[in-house]
Amino acid sequence: MRILGIDPGSQRTGLGVIDVAADGRCTYVAARALKLLDAEDFPSRLGLLCEGLEAALDEFAPTQVAIETVFMDKSATSALKLGHARGAALATVVRRRIPISEYPPRVIKQSLVGRGAADKQQVQHMVRLLLNLPEVKLQADAADALAVALTHAHMSATAQRTGIATHQLRRRGA
Amino acid sequence: MRILGIDPGSQRTGLGVIDVAADGRCTYVAARALKLLDAEDFPSRLGLLCEGLEAALDEFAPTQVAIETVFMDKSATSALKLGHARGAALATVVRRRIPISEYPPRVIKQSLVGRGAADKQQVQHMVRLLLNLPEVKLQADAADALAVALTHAHMSATAQRTGIATHQLRRRGA
Repeated sequence: MRILGIDPGSQRTGLGVIDVAADGRCTYVAARALKLLDAEDFPSRLGLLCEGLEAALDEFAPTQVAIETVFMDKSATSALKLGHARGAALATVVRRRIPISEYPPRVIKQSLVGRGAADKQQVQHMVRLLLNLPEVKLQADAADALAVALTHAHMSATAQRTGIATHQLRRRGA
Repeated sequence: MRILGIDPGSQRTGLGVIDVAADGRCTYVAARALKLLDAEDFPSRLGLLCEGLEAALDEFAPTQVAIETVFMDKSATSALKLGHARGAALATVVRRRIPISEYPPRVIKQSLVGRGAADKQQVQHMVRLLLNLPEVKLQADAADALAVALTHAHMSATAQRTGIATHQLRRRGA
């Protein structure tokens, strides 16, 4: 199983790719941050996001995609901008018929650090540790994308062991 | 000039196509509402939206696209859903390199009815009148899509007369 994690944003969007072996071991494949602020206007940023995402889908051919749900403690304005970015990303993935799972931030923190209130540094530390990347320079958005990919790997493994479908997990987590 | 107007929504998205002659006269070409609620889940709705929009871009080959900006008097949750739909639509259009103009609801009402506080019925009445559609059954979302297309036609005509670029108008209206 190859998972592409997406950390969507209208200024930068993080992409992270991992492989999951039959025994559940996760291996780092790639991570990048798409810089969208250079675009001429807001619609063009969404165009850049889709182009960068499609390039990654072509290059890495993931079998599953995982994406964070939106943390609604933001202002309506920032939720709206984030919604645009997420909508563009989801539409791009759905059109390729790749299954998408969504996880709330607290589920990602719980899954990686063991508690839902962990801070970003702790999450990034665990991403490095789990993927054995002690010295790789990781941009924050790319690390967050790897974090949601790792969460999906863990959740899928749990689902397989317990017989609960990932689909149900997604619903429950949302 | 052929304009495609989009009234984006995560439940239904309206599309309206008009032709604008050299003398500014607008003619009705087509209007439809994409019903998205039948989709299995939210990401699939965005996929349906993009498929329906791409089919219309293929069929009608518009040279310009016009879309409403988001009315931020909504709750953060509905703004977020609307943002997803708008983001998916904008990304689809931008990737085809078709110019997009955005207009706030009050500018559309002002342009069609003559006052920014007009109600939906008045706007739909003016859409029928301006496009000479006395008996055509128009769904609300399709009528709203035609309204934003007509607004863009009027704004472009004004811009041509006064020498103000549409790009500037868009910025000012936003």
